[in-house]
Amino acid sequence: MDKVLDSPADAIADVEDGARIAISGFGQTAGSPVSLLRALGERGTRRLCLIANGLQPAAQALINQHQVRELIVSFTTRAGTRTPMEEQIASGEITFELVPQGTLVERMRAGGAGLAAIYTPTGLGTRIAEGKEVRCFDGRWYVLETALTADYAFIAGLRADRLGNVEFRGANVHFGPSFAKAARTAIVEVDEIVEVGELPAERVGLPGIFVDRVVRRRGAADPPQPAQRRPADQARQYLGRPGWTRAQMAERAAALLPEPGYVNLGLGIPTYISSYVADRDIVLHAENGVLGYGPLAADGEGDPDVFNAGGQLVARRPGMSFFDSVAAFEMIRSGRVGVVALGAYQVDGDGSFANWATPEMQGGGIGGAMDLVAGGAQVMVLMEHHDSRGRPKLVRSCTYPLTGVRCVDVVVTDLAVLRRERPSGGFAVESVAPGFTSREVMELTELRG
Amino acid sequence: MDKVLDSPADAIADVEDGARIAISGFGQTAGSPVSLLRALGERGTRRLCLIANGLQPAAQALINQHQVRELIVSFTTRAGTRTPMEEQIASGEITFELVPQGTLVERMRAGGAGLAAIYTPTGLGTRIAEGKEVRCFDGRWYVLETALTADYAFIAGLRADRLGNVEFRGANVHFGPSFAKAARTAIVEVDEIVEVGELPAERVGLPGIFVDRVVRRRGAADPPQPAQRRPADQARQYLGRPGWTRAQMAERAAALLPEPGYVNLGLGIPTYISSYVADRDIVLHAENGVLGYGPLAADGEGDPDVFNAGGQLVARRPGMSFFDSVAAFEMIRSGRVGVVALGAYQVDGDGSFANWATPEMQGGGIGGAMDLVAGGAQVMVLMEHHDSRGRPKLVRSCTYPLTGVRCVDVVVTDLAVLRRERPSGGFAVESVAPGFTSREVMELTELRG
Repeated sequence: MDKVLDSPADAIADVEDGARIAISGFGQTAGSPVSLLRALGERGTRRLCLIANGLQPAAQALINQHQVRELIVSFTTRAGTRTPMEEQIASGEITFELVPQGTLVERMRAGGAGLAAIYTPTGLGTRIAEGKEVRCFDGRWYVLETALTADYAFIAGLRADRLGNVEFRGANVHFGPSFAKAARTAIVEVDEIVEVGELPAERVGLPGIFVDRVVRRRGAADPPQPAQRRPADQARQYLGRPGWTRAQMAERAAALLPEPGYVNLGLGIPTYISSYVADRDIVLHAENGVLGYGPLAADGEGDPDVFNAGGQLVARRPGMSFFDSVAAFEMIRSGRVGVVALGAYQVDGDGSFANWATPEMQGGGIGGAMDLVAGGAQVMVLMEHHDSRGRPKLVRSCTYPLTGVRCVDVVVTDLAVLRRERPSGGFAVESVAPGFTSREVMELTELRG
Repeated sequence: MDKVLDSPADAIADVEDGARIAISGFGQTAGSPVSLLRALGERGTRRLCLIANGLQPAAQALINQHQVRELIVSFTTRAGTRTPMEEQIASGEITFELVPQGTLVERMRAGGAGLAAIYTPTGLGTRIAEGKEVRCFDGRWYVLETALTADYAFIAGLRADRLGNVEFRGANVHFGPSFAKAARTAIVEVDEIVEVGELPAERVGLPGIFVDRVVRRRGAADPPQPAQRRPADQARQYLGRPGWTRAQMAERAAALLPEPGYVNLGLGIPTYISSYVADRDIVLHAENGVLGYGPLAADGEGDPDVFNAGGQLVARRPGMSFFDSVAAFEMIRSGRVGVVALGAYQVDGDGSFANWATPEMQGGGIGGAMDLVAGGAQVMVLMEHHDSRGRPKLVRSCTYPLTGVRCVDVVVTDLAVLRRERPSGGFAVESVAPGFTSREVMELTELRG
């Protein structure tokens, strides 16, 4: 049994037009199977269906070369961009299916485990559940999600042997195991091929039976792109006065976290919270597959294999653990993550919220948010009080597609902390930024006072 | 966050009458959470529901003390015994639900992952599917199995820290992760409590978020019980002449295995096959969670944490890997294990077979067999030509409850190798033991010639 091939081109030599390929990788560039994707670009295979969380540069390149006709992804885009992918979506050249991240890995895992379908609470009451069977078990409602499989999986690992056993490093496990399992042919590119027996049995992250081909990486990985953080120390003006800065919002949100506890920090402003809990009895969870990480790494520092759910490098901490995204979402859906902090475009008076698509977008960025609010955690939204056009983000009723229904407990804006009272509903102002009154804060929303 | 408790008694101090407890452990004694079970015996808690693969001595002791009212297990018993458990089942004191091993871990895993139910092919056409919804997806049929949860899980591990991070050793992972996930309160006993940071992040087999309490093991583990292997070198007599010995049957079966390939060896005669494939390009899979193991260890030798699906100690081999039972059954159900070798009570002419219950049993021993035949593998049955009462085991139609329908491809008895021709059905003799004719072999069955 020798699964090692000489080159990435050999490893993908039988990929035909129309193939469905699951591609691992997380965030901007981490864990991207670049040599396999570049080889596929050179091969010129067309009408591909790509399954991925989001598309990293080496996968985007296939789109730029018009090799792709279909996407099954959690993210087509984030706000404010207009990429070749979006152009091709707009023109109808590419069709897409958006899948919540936790549902994506569960569907792939089911496909790879010989199961036909699962019932999950993720996406209830949102567009994701439209047209799907919804069913009640023990008084709770669940959506039927069917298994997904792929013709190929392209995975990146650290080391592998000729039996196909793969070792991952740090947080770069994420989609590797579930995508490999779901594929008829799983292909793994690694930094190093080792002799059989060199990988300790306990360090095999993907046993060889799930892997069909192994190849050593060629060429450099895509360079990490600098995180595009908005300055944390600038404040917006409301009524001619400054609100809280993002750093202050994060500090205030951190102070609201119960301890001991497990907390998940979403993309955007919530990521700053990690800098305010280092001395607290709080364990941070990231849905890519990390538990117990530390503050954001300073620019130019950090281990490239240790990152949060925004793909930002974070510090290692004692007691940390790494696992795949399937396990990461088990922690979420089962209610073990006690608090979830998310960004949002809109939150309405009933606690429903929208954070994955605006009318300008082709597609959207669902990510793990729908899973994160499906587990019964306390949901905390951090967002500016108004959007970039000066419109209130606390609205009477969300006009953007929903992420979750009646689930937001606390909103931290740059003007106030608002808490929703259950079951009566409605947000009450709990504290306000210096120089503002509760009444002003409420008047700057569309909520009923 | 400090999850370490002083004693097993403290760790189980809130377990009340009627509690549902999932108990990890595999085979005769491996990985048994003995201190927690002994503490529960002393506490005297009653009317317990135990969820387990099978009951090891420390759990049996709870039954002997009449503390148990319900079992959800893969094995209540194996043939030829009459334990206190069986007495209590017979008298109605204990009720039980038999669950195929792969379905047991999937149901627990679903419960621990916030899912309500799954559709699995396991158990189709058997008693296990009776009364359950059966549904077609993409032309194949699946059984709806609902999630299982528990009030407590009792798990054994190697080391843990106060955050609840657990390291397992060797094959003693099996039910630990899925059972812990499914429990409201997961309690882990370990050989050693270490400082936070001493467990490398990549060696955490069960992240602390899934663990509520940790305690150091007290007292000795239950002593391994000597394997009760029937002599491999004795032959039964048919028509006054000796057939093949068990060793010869295993050797013959081994010669039929295609290579390279992945092969699962079930309990009984199939376990001997591992001694005849060491120099072959064959990777042995055991559904407890081992891939790439070696021959059976000699008596008194072997690593107590390295065992096959019969709980027998086996040799380590380069390229081996360990994983939990959920992953082990993913490999099976997804069709990656190419050949499955099983024992059986009866095989009929259509290739249906029975191997988990006889009319004399209270309950039975389903184990992983129904999962093993659900993945589309080549199914090879190894069994004596006649049962201990001299009745043919190759029958016109199975009278014992079925394990799988029309799935057996090859039967190796102590008189012959028979192969079923698909799709026409019916077994043809492929080779016979020395001194016998094909006709004699067929006449010693109930099959139509």
